[in-house]
Amino acid sequence: MQYAAPIARLIEELGRLPGVGPKTAQRLAFHLLLADREEAVRLAAAIVEARERVRHCSVCWNLTDADPCALCSDPARDRSLICVVEEPKDVAALERSRAFRGLYHVLQGAISPLDGIGPDKLRIKELLDRLGGVREVILATNPDVEGEATALYLSRLLQPLGVKVTRLARGLPEGGDLDYVDEVTLSRALEGRREM
Amino acid sequence: MQYAAPIARLIEELGRLPGVGPKTAQRLAFHLLLADREEAVRLAAAIVEARERVRHCSVCWNLTDADPCALCSDPARDRSLICVVEEPKDVAALERSRAFRGLYHVLQGAISPLDGIGPDKLRIKELLDRLGGVREVILATNPDVEGEATALYLSRLLQPLGVKVTRLARGLPEGGDLDYVDEVTLSRALEGRREM
Repeated sequence: MQYAAPIARLIEELGRLPGVGPKTAQRLAFHLLLADREEAVRLAAAIVEARERVRHCSVCWNLTDADPCALCSDPARDRSLICVVEEPKDVAALERSRAFRGLYHVLQGAISPLDGIGPDKLRIKELLDRLGGVREVILATNPDVEGEATALYLSRLLQPLGVKVTRLARGLPEGGDLDYVDEVTLSRALEGRREM
Repeated sequence: MQYAAPIARLIEELGRLPGVGPKTAQRLAFHLLLADREEAVRLAAAIVEARERVRHCSVCWNLTDADPCALCSDPARDRSLICVVEEPKDVAALERSRAFRGLYHVLQGAISPLDGIGPDKLRIKELLDRLGGVREVILATNPDVEGEATALYLSRLLQPLGVKVTRLARGLPEGGDLDYVDEVTLSRALEGRREM
């Protein structure tokens, strides 16, 4: 009996979060217990609301609370340009760079045989179904082994279909995560993209 | 418009947690959005339940869901022994050691003039009110500057009242390598050496 049951349960649930060990879970639990009550209640409500309202966009497979998502329904975006990324956070990173005005396609990951993720696990078929009226597909998968493999796979699949396929310029640092790249580097990489 | 509103709100609320920066908040948010739905809902429920049911024990000031807490109401605990700690997590640490069978008193912090925490901010008056029938008070505040100052302050307050006041021993931690022990700990271990 180290903690009262509701405290033990809170520590246990917090400990299931990625990268949160027992000590961190304990620290977060005491913060939620002792800090502003409103803050704790707002966090709980935000979790529930997000789970209830957020789903995948049926067009681009980004996370959204409206289907199609705000980007896919924005008439100001260039519909002839699709930027393919691995994760929703990559869309956010590219949007922060303000260097891209087309649409996105979120693959939901990258090809990774070691993790048992083959092309069939990604939203590739859904990408092929969107190619009508598209003149260019920009491959913006991460500049790491899995991202490169995915880009290569997609370029071989897309090029025979007569669509222009480009890849973000190799201004990106090797081995990084797209999401961690600063806005200027991302803008440069978009400007310098080259045909595969 | 980088994220749909419910996602942005979840990231923002997670980012208020201590030690959680924007990147970690984003990572946790996507985990909560994409992992098992039950897990996310259970976490939200655990937060709300803990805030609703957990309060301070009116005797020892530990966090509890019953007042007095399970430790204070346990007839098997030695009521003549009070161990004074800073935080609820210190009670949990001592209980894990299974080396103490008395009662606790949780000060709710330590004296820290730099942080504006004087003795009046701690549960010291409540400790003095509990001394009837107590033969020993063990000071188990942290072995750092604030914990030492608090222990010194309490010992000066308690000793004139005729109660035995002790402090947790200082010395080498179990299982370490002498070579890796810091100088202050080594000095304390030498000072506190005991005849074999």
